[in-house]
Amino acid sequence: MTTLTEPTPEHLAELSACLDAGGLIDAASDAALPYFVDPRDVYRGRAAAILKPASTGQVAAILRLCHRHRIGVVPYGGGTGLVGAQLSPEDSPAGPRPVVVALERMNRIRAVLPADGAIIAEAGVILADLQAAAEDAGRLFPLSLAAQGSCRIGGNLATNAGGVQVLRYGTARDLCLGLEAVLADGSVLSGLKPLRKDNTGYDLRHLLIGSEGTLGVITAATLKLFPLPGEVVTAMLAVPSPDGAVSLMQTLRERLGDGFSAFELIAGQGIAFLAQFYPSRTDPLADRPEWRVLVEITGPSGGGLTERAEAVLGELFEAGLATDGVLAANEAQRAHMWWMRETLPECNRRIGTVATHDISLPLSGIGRFIAAATETIAGFDAGSGGALRINCFGHVGDGNLHYNVFPPKGGRVADYRALAGPVVTAIHDLVDAHGGSISAEHGIGRAKIADLEKYGDPAKLAAMRAIKAALDPLGILNPGAVVAG
Amino acid sequence: MTTLTEPTPEHLAELSACLDAGGLIDAASDAALPYFVDPRDVYRGRAAAILKPASTGQVAAILRLCHRHRIGVVPYGGGTGLVGAQLSPEDSPAGPRPVVVALERMNRIRAVLPADGAIIAEAGVILADLQAAAEDAGRLFPLSLAAQGSCRIGGNLATNAGGVQVLRYGTARDLCLGLEAVLADGSVLSGLKPLRKDNTGYDLRHLLIGSEGTLGVITAATLKLFPLPGEVVTAMLAVPSPDGAVSLMQTLRERLGDGFSAFELIAGQGIAFLAQFYPSRTDPLADRPEWRVLVEITGPSGGGLTERAEAVLGELFEAGLATDGVLAANEAQRAHMWWMRETLPECNRRIGTVATHDISLPLSGIGRFIAAATETIAGFDAGSGGALRINCFGHVGDGNLHYNVFPPKGGRVADYRALAGPVVTAIHDLVDAHGGSISAEHGIGRAKIADLEKYGDPAKLAAMRAIKAALDPLGILNPGAVVAG
Repeated sequence: MTTLTEPTPEHLAELSACLDAGGLIDAASDAALPYFVDPRDVYRGRAAAILKPASTGQVAAILRLCHRHRIGVVPYGGGTGLVGAQLSPEDSPAGPRPVVVALERMNRIRAVLPADGAIIAEAGVILADLQAAAEDAGRLFPLSLAAQGSCRIGGNLATNAGGVQVLRYGTARDLCLGLEAVLADGSVLSGLKPLRKDNTGYDLRHLLIGSEGTLGVITAATLKLFPLPGEVVTAMLAVPSPDGAVSLMQTLRERLGDGFSAFELIAGQGIAFLAQFYPSRTDPLADRPEWRVLVEITGPSGGGLTERAEAVLGELFEAGLATDGVLAANEAQRAHMWWMRETLPECNRRIGTVATHDISLPLSGIGRFIAAATETIAGFDAGSGGALRINCFGHVGDGNLHYNVFPPKGGRVADYRALAGPVVTAIHDLVDAHGGSISAEHGIGRAKIADLEKYGDPAKLAAMRAIKAALDPLGILNPGAVVAG
Repeated sequence: MTTLTEPTPEHLAELSACLDAGGLIDAASDAALPYFVDPRDVYRGRAAAILKPASTGQVAAILRLCHRHRIGVVPYGGGTGLVGAQLSPEDSPAGPRPVVVALERMNRIRAVLPADGAIIAEAGVILADLQAAAEDAGRLFPLSLAAQGSCRIGGNLATNAGGVQVLRYGTARDLCLGLEAVLADGSVLSGLKPLRKDNTGYDLRHLLIGSEGTLGVITAATLKLFPLPGEVVTAMLAVPSPDGAVSLMQTLRERLGDGFSAFELIAGQGIAFLAQFYPSRTDPLADRPEWRVLVEITGPSGGGLTERAEAVLGELFEAGLATDGVLAANEAQRAHMWWMRETLPECNRRIGTVATHDISLPLSGIGRFIAAATETIAGFDAGSGGALRINCFGHVGDGNLHYNVFPPKGGRVADYRALAGPVVTAIHDLVDAHGGSISAEHGIGRAKIADLEKYGDPAKLAAMRAIKAALDPLGILNPGAVVAG
């Protein structure tokens, strides 16, 4: 890591010569600014230049040069990552300024292969455009998350993105049949075959996915397509507890099959935030229950799913698994339920968080964890303003919670900055004690390196370092991310 | 690789001291013989001793010693692998004799976690026992393959086993939530949390799965459980062609949903072999069609799947997607259909193959490939006995074919040995030209190293060697397998 070089003007001229016109952006220009911020406004980035290759060959040429000159490379997708993997911070100890390699010009759908149930997309394709290309072919690309209008599929794969449809379709990893990527020395890994089974050697695809740009630059991917859902049942159900939500899911699965496309937990606190900013929007459930779930189940057309769901709903009430609930009777009601879920992060940002956590737990431990965490947070002295508030929501079907902590009602976030570190430590300690993960879907980036060192398996960390050194011996790829120097 | 040492009597005494009584088997004893043969009788194995550890700690102690003394280690599960990954051949150029580390004493189910949808099993648990343990807990562990009565889950994971339920549930890789493994230096990777989402660093689980014992010794795994199927529809349908089989599957998926647990292609030649050895067993289909599929679709109880399947079957006939077909009306009929499919490999063995191939293709290319392969095989001069026979069958829903070539009717396998190499080369060349894989589910082992070198992506092969050198710098793990020295 200490061997990296700050690119000279000559190096930048060489790099520019690899690119199409306008492919190199001066780091001091306004056009470079978007590459130096992150959605949570935690970091300020820096670089010697922003490079925008238009082809895999150009990425390979950049990497060959950077490898030869020992220049750091920060791969950049849509810039929506929440753990700082997409920038080299100004205050970083990572050494000389790197170049940013932004994949946005590589935004072609190379092939739509409905008969193979596959689509081949370049890394810079925006997720929503990929979903649209699939739908144009009468197919579903199911990866779906809040940033889908701006995140790019290369970044989704590099971070193994999750989102709301993981329960049925898996994370980005599970949706990927093959990858094309440029390795640290500029060699190109060509693995875009749309095969469902291929046991020819080590699975480098899965090694690159989730490595956050530290082992290679993903340039294209072959992704799975699915039939469009014919029948969709969407429901919002009040549940007696988070554990009750998990039990409800298991019962629904037994009665209705594996067709869950979403199973989202929402806390009453989140609904209170919604009501604060959107007072005219109604709540489908009465009396703002402490816990509710948004459930979506899909099936083929003509399969009678809606009728079966209606019948099962009655049983759920009888069994006490749901205490209130509504099936969306039309698309407007469905859209409203989803608007509620999808507007929670915006409300959280407007309130302002003391601390956020992207965690996962064994399904059997969710209730115990939430109870313990509530107690832990109550133990923090928030001063005279009252108790810290908690909005715990997320993809409970996968055991993935977004556990966010807020100032007391009326309090200003700025007054609680000192609590952020201790709160995160306390919650992550608790996650660890409950056998969970301190990063369920956002990754490690730069924000969670210390957590990974603290909670990670030492043998795993040692193996990660050995692999990093083997595939990127000069440490040019995303220096300072995931694997500390 | 050249640095390995033949274990001395002192080394073996040290190794024996790590084990329970009877944990070391002398290589010259009869008890060692089963570890030196493979199911296809292609190899003769050798070792300095067979070691049978009873715990992860014992495996770690063995690896530490072998690492210190540079002794080769061949991990051994159920010994059912078809590409020779489980033994060090007598005629191997791999150098000094290794020790075999057989995991059969590590056969405990450590935990059944129905609420987490998970089961934790040691590497030596026989697959059928794992299935039974899941069923005892009212859950399904779906990995299912011909060798399930003797293969062990550690080997299934090390080779990323496939089988008949991949279409719905995925390969061994997709069923694994976490791994415990001992690395080359004896360090223990502890990753058995039953989490659905965990983005904390590189995914070593997926790197170890499919690495065939060359990167670590898997000692335990956390595996996914599913609800037991409530309703099962099994059908045998005559289809006009292999491409027609793929079209049929896509139509069924659109009409009945994603609940396929199996979609197996069977050639008329396979049915002819069955009739030869089991003349009294009836064929549910008339006139022995050239191509048929065995379809199984599952759903929750009370979901009306059978009624819907019956309705769809009529449509399939009308549309010409199926030309004949039978739904199993009871368990006996279902069992008979499965007996037909599962008895094909036995008949193949009894006839005797000139060459076998475990290949996969893009779904859209299956018809083209089979037509081209038929022509290629017809081009081989089989002498005066007539044409070589082909039995092409397999998991067509995944694009995975077992493409087996036999002597002309009445011919003796022994007379066609010289054709084996040229046939395999011709078929693998064709697979490569059609964008397929020369190892869909069996792996590389020792049998397909030359093929991997020939058809593999050079950047991938270089990265594999770098990873192997990083994680096993002395080359003690399964020397000579997968990654040639």
